[in-house]
Amino acid sequence: MVLFLNVLGACFSPCGRNVYISMPYVQTMLNENIAEVLAERQKEISVSEFFERNKHVLGFDSPVKSLITAVKEGVDNALDACEEAEILPDLTVEIRKVERNEYLIAIQDNGPGIVKRNIPKVFGQLLYGSRFHAIRQSRGQQGIGISGVVMYSQLTTGRPARILSKTAKKMAANEVFLSIDTKHNRPEVVKEDVVLWDETEHGTRVEVYIKGRLLKGRQSVYEYLRRTAIVNPHARIIYEEEGKKYIFERATDKLPKKTVEIRPHPYGVELGTLLKMLKHSKNRQINAFLMNEFSRVSARVAEDICSAAEIDPKKKPKEISTDEAKKLVNAMKKVKIMAPPSDCLSPIGAHLIKKGLRNVLDEYSPEYYVPPITREPAVYSGNPFQVEVGMVYGGNLPKDQQVEILRFANRVPLLYQQGACAITHAIERVKWKQYGLEQRSGKGIPAGPAIILVHVASTRVPFTSEAKEAVADIPEIIEEIDKGLKECARHLRLHIKKQEKKKKVRDKFEIVQKIIPEIAKKSAEIVGKPVPPIDKTITKIMGVLWVDYESKYAKGAFDAKITVINYMEKKAKFSLYAEIEKEDIASISPEGTPDGRGIRWELKLEPTESFEISLKLRGERGDYSDMELYTDGVNQVHVVGAEPLPGDWTLEKTKIVEVN
Amino acid sequence: MVLFLNVLGACFSPCGRNVYISMPYVQTMLNENIAEVLAERQKEISVSEFFERNKHVLGFDSPVKSLITAVKEGVDNALDACEEAEILPDLTVEIRKVERNEYLIAIQDNGPGIVKRNIPKVFGQLLYGSRFHAIRQSRGQQGIGISGVVMYSQLTTGRPARILSKTAKKMAANEVFLSIDTKHNRPEVVKEDVVLWDETEHGTRVEVYIKGRLLKGRQSVYEYLRRTAIVNPHARIIYEEEGKKYIFERATDKLPKKTVEIRPHPYGVELGTLLKMLKHSKNRQINAFLMNEFSRVSARVAEDICSAAEIDPKKKPKEISTDEAKKLVNAMKKVKIMAPPSDCLSPIGAHLIKKGLRNVLDEYSPEYYVPPITREPAVYSGNPFQVEVGMVYGGNLPKDQQVEILRFANRVPLLYQQGACAITHAIERVKWKQYGLEQRSGKGIPAGPAIILVHVASTRVPFTSEAKEAVADIPEIIEEIDKGLKECARHLRLHIKKQEKKKKVRDKFEIVQKIIPEIAKKSAEIVGKPVPPIDKTITKIMGVLWVDYESKYAKGAFDAKITVINYMEKKAKFSLYAEIEKEDIASISPEGTPDGRGIRWELKLEPTESFEISLKLRGERGDYSDMELYTDGVNQVHVVGAEPLPGDWTLEKTKIVEVN
Repeated sequence: MVLFLNVLGACFSPCGRNVYISMPYVQTMLNENIAEVLAERQKEISVSEFFERNKHVLGFDSPVKSLITAVKEGVDNALDACEEAEILPDLTVEIRKVERNEYLIAIQDNGPGIVKRNIPKVFGQLLYGSRFHAIRQSRGQQGIGISGVVMYSQLTTGRPARILSKTAKKMAANEVFLSIDTKHNRPEVVKEDVVLWDETEHGTRVEVYIKGRLLKGRQSVYEYLRRTAIVNPHARIIYEEEGKKYIFERATDKLPKKTVEIRPHPYGVELGTLLKMLKHSKNRQINAFLMNEFSRVSARVAEDICSAAEIDPKKKPKEISTDEAKKLVNAMKKVKIMAPPSDCLSPIGAHLIKKGLRNVLDEYSPEYYVPPITREPAVYSGNPFQVEVGMVYGGNLPKDQQVEILRFANRVPLLYQQGACAITHAIERVKWKQYGLEQRSGKGIPAGPAIILVHVASTRVPFTSEAKEAVADIPEIIEEIDKGLKECARHLRLHIKKQEKKKKVRDKFEIVQKIIPEIAKKSAEIVGKPVPPIDKTITKIMGVLWVDYESKYAKGAFDAKITVINYMEKKAKFSLYAEIEKEDIASISPEGTPDGRGIRWELKLEPTESFEISLKLRGERGDYSDMELYTDGVNQVHVVGAEPLPGDWTLEKTKIVEVN
Repeated sequence: MVLFLNVLGACFSPCGRNVYISMPYVQTMLNENIAEVLAERQKEISVSEFFERNKHVLGFDSPVKSLITAVKEGVDNALDACEEAEILPDLTVEIRKVERNEYLIAIQDNGPGIVKRNIPKVFGQLLYGSRFHAIRQSRGQQGIGISGVVMYSQLTTGRPARILSKTAKKMAANEVFLSIDTKHNRPEVVKEDVVLWDETEHGTRVEVYIKGRLLKGRQSVYEYLRRTAIVNPHARIIYEEEGKKYIFERATDKLPKKTVEIRPHPYGVELGTLLKMLKHSKNRQINAFLMNEFSRVSARVAEDICSAAEIDPKKKPKEISTDEAKKLVNAMKKVKIMAPPSDCLSPIGAHLIKKGLRNVLDEYSPEYYVPPITREPAVYSGNPFQVEVGMVYGGNLPKDQQVEILRFANRVPLLYQQGACAITHAIERVKWKQYGLEQRSGKGIPAGPAIILVHVASTRVPFTSEAKEAVADIPEIIEEIDKGLKECARHLRLHIKKQEKKKKVRDKFEIVQKIIPEIAKKSAEIVGKPVPPIDKTITKIMGVLWVDYESKYAKGAFDAKITVINYMEKKAKFSLYAEIEKEDIASISPEGTPDGRGIRWELKLEPTESFEISLKLRGERGDYSDMELYTDGVNQVHVVGAEPLPGDWTLEKTKIVEVN
């Protein structure tokens, strides 16, 4: 009560407002009772207690998923550590049943190791990490993942985690057994030691015991690691499951280009963030502040921002008021600023996207691989991000089911929470019917023989929860995915139309070829004359320039054939173009002329004359199962099986970013 | 390096292991470089910083949603506070545009108020609250919601929040302007004052400025409040949006039964939690520990648990080892223990579920309200929970679209993240085809003229994220929802079958009634005799006992009629039963006999004889749009329009829990 009286007293004069004072105090005390009782219950909650109670938001909501989550967090950490130190990752993941529903999980890397004093906090304290404030793409970010695994281990089996880490070849390894004091979010070292560990020159090994269930199939640890290996071909991953050993070999010795840490981009920066930056800035003038603490702000851009905000560029950052900061935020939106540098991002790239798709396809042998799209980097809330989309279609893919969706974020496969993910939501809102896929009542996941792959890379992927299973519905991200999907979908539509047109012509052709000779024969019989030549008649009825592509694949090579037949009444003189990577060519006959994105042939065909090109091409399954063919110099309405030559034929395909 | 040397030194003798010592130290220091550099970057992250960066996990991922989230958190808090103090809630929610994309949101309640010293932490510190450790149903739990709103407000508009709170009639109100120091997760009081506030005797008002967008429609603040009002009929909610005022009047003066705080239930308690409880227990013996710190553990049950775990019941809790604790956890699973007490839970109840459904139905006037199901309480990870399911079918509901799903958790409507929710996932895995709804490829959300409502109540609803938008996929919860859905679905199937059978018979009847007289007439003409009576012939062909129900609804009353016609060859003597709540009866003629869950009539009908019952019933739209009719004492294969009398007819419907 003393506190309360003091407050009332203190307010008598200085505030000068209409103050009501309650009398008598005894009555007041009685009335205040409920609030007081409630007040006593208010307590601080530690962040570990919070996540211990809400372990499902960390991905520990079922025994099957818990095992995968534990492996995922360990692998994310290991890959990040290796890449940060520019070491080619050598990972070992081991799972061994120790009793019913209890497993030992060990994850080992050849990363730079962790210095001894940091081991307890890295593994035994939530919200402790190195990547939270860095603006560049990495798998882990929050400092929750691996300590969450240690916490879950302790919660379900009561056993401490064992960490083994070594920072250099000639060093001994530190061995630490630790648990978490969840009441205070503090690591507790149970035992520590220095041991000989010569399996690796440097690296870290984490061992935890957790309750879980080990399954096979789509959502299994094996599958998770397989998909991880596909988009991280620079990593070698050995997986030992209950004595069985699987090795995902390294496919390249090149590390992905190291991502660079950047400053925040002005687009979408929140007012609160800007205020904090202004408060802590060491710059003396607002224009210097803008140039030095943001990316893509040149002297010119800084000037433009200040002038749009009507603020003196020489003003001190610390003197900027909230209202002025708001003007700055609005000005940043109006001024044209370059997209953020893309070197903070590490997209998967067209080559690996195709490879990723091929790997899940097995026996489906789809008829068409849509060229993968890598969008230009964009920004949400000041965070750069980049979207990639791949798609395959046809073949033996099931026709009457929903399309399969493969989701990746920062090169990590997402296996759970498909329904919660911005990737799925973006797919659901595209009008797929106009692109050739079925879609009930015009929305939702389309049905048809297709697989869609989407990758979202960002310096900060906005996951819907700490388990990092789904991307949140950030409007800017949905928009970019939407654009990527539609780009791919347009290719798909072209392909489907081409196929349909061909089928129609082929059907007509078959009928014509059967009926016309019959008619000719019958007419000849009736009038008692010999059967006339009918090739020209057929040509007249068909009136098309027929372009056909066929290919067979075996052991890294395509045996392919392009056939062109002139079914028009007149002679045709035109150019034929085929999109082929030059380095894929083993042999082509006739050779043609290298041109733009492929090869050009100049053709001259009399009516009913045909022309054949044989090709032997290097590539992987899918690369040349269909081919983009174009014609120029002929009325396009007559052409079946090729598109008009696009305007950007001679340009490099800038949209496709190749990694490695 | 000193630290490192010390450690090495300390390990020389005592551990007695094979210790590798690195020499020379200079070399070591160089090698350790990368790890050291990385170590320097490791930092603690405050929980506010974390959520500021990940504001989307709190529900602030788009401007439209941000407004709703802010209102939702305020309203949750206000309702919880009132109910805890057993005050009938009077809420005011105001939204006013202050500039483009910026709104003032004010939420005011007549709750017990908050004592001054607690105001800063309650609104300006994340993970601070009173309900985290209490095991009972409440809307808020984590101490994140409202301080998250304050944080978002500060981030987007840079303005402090204003809190006004008064704990008793004769007291002045405390006015506090505060912001959050997110670097340290600490409240910062910008200004405080004591002011006169006589709008309410006690209560709290929160005012924040946030960036957002105000929309109409399905996912609007108005809709959120409307749905909230439906399942919280004891609350009066006034909503002022941009000058327009909407009042959701209180529908009852009875507060929902206050939920009682309980101890944890032994089923599914995690080992780590048990270890913590054992460590902090004041009980001297393990059997007393079990009885006093768990719910539903009697002396007998405690003994059974100890004996199943092979532990001396007199052993001290603090002396229980991890292995023994594991045995206890396993023993708890084996011993039969009563379900948790349900007074910690507050289900919506059948009446309000129907009302909730009616409210979204508007002009659809469905033909059938499936009787709502309230399942018995169950347990996951020691947390009691309870599932309720309601369903409507037919009428003008759209036939070729996915069914609409209404989700509630702890009486709070869930508007977002349908695809991420265990409720949706449970619906998707039911085989709906066998219950009469369409379902593409046997899985997914069914299509058809239906709405499904599911409520999950729990002392701890496991939400997928801190935004509390979707229930996580906890296997036990999915299982219970599944059972509730199937119970409802069985009713639906019966209804659809009854309708189909009736339609078939009716079609046959129409044909028979047209054709037989024609045949009779023609035959009579041919043989030159008078047309014979044909009623008996029709009867012979039909061979059914026809029971029909029709009703008209107007202003809280049903005008209904039951018609029974004996289209069988023989006399029919049987009992007819109608399920009617006794208090709903205004008049019935003939009266019948009260029996079991309704009224019974003893009928004796000659062939072709009919019988009619007129009913006037009180109720709300949907209550008696269809009626459950049963027959007994007649061969059921002949009956159309009524089911065989169920075995539990005379029992109270224990499954339906009525609240209020």
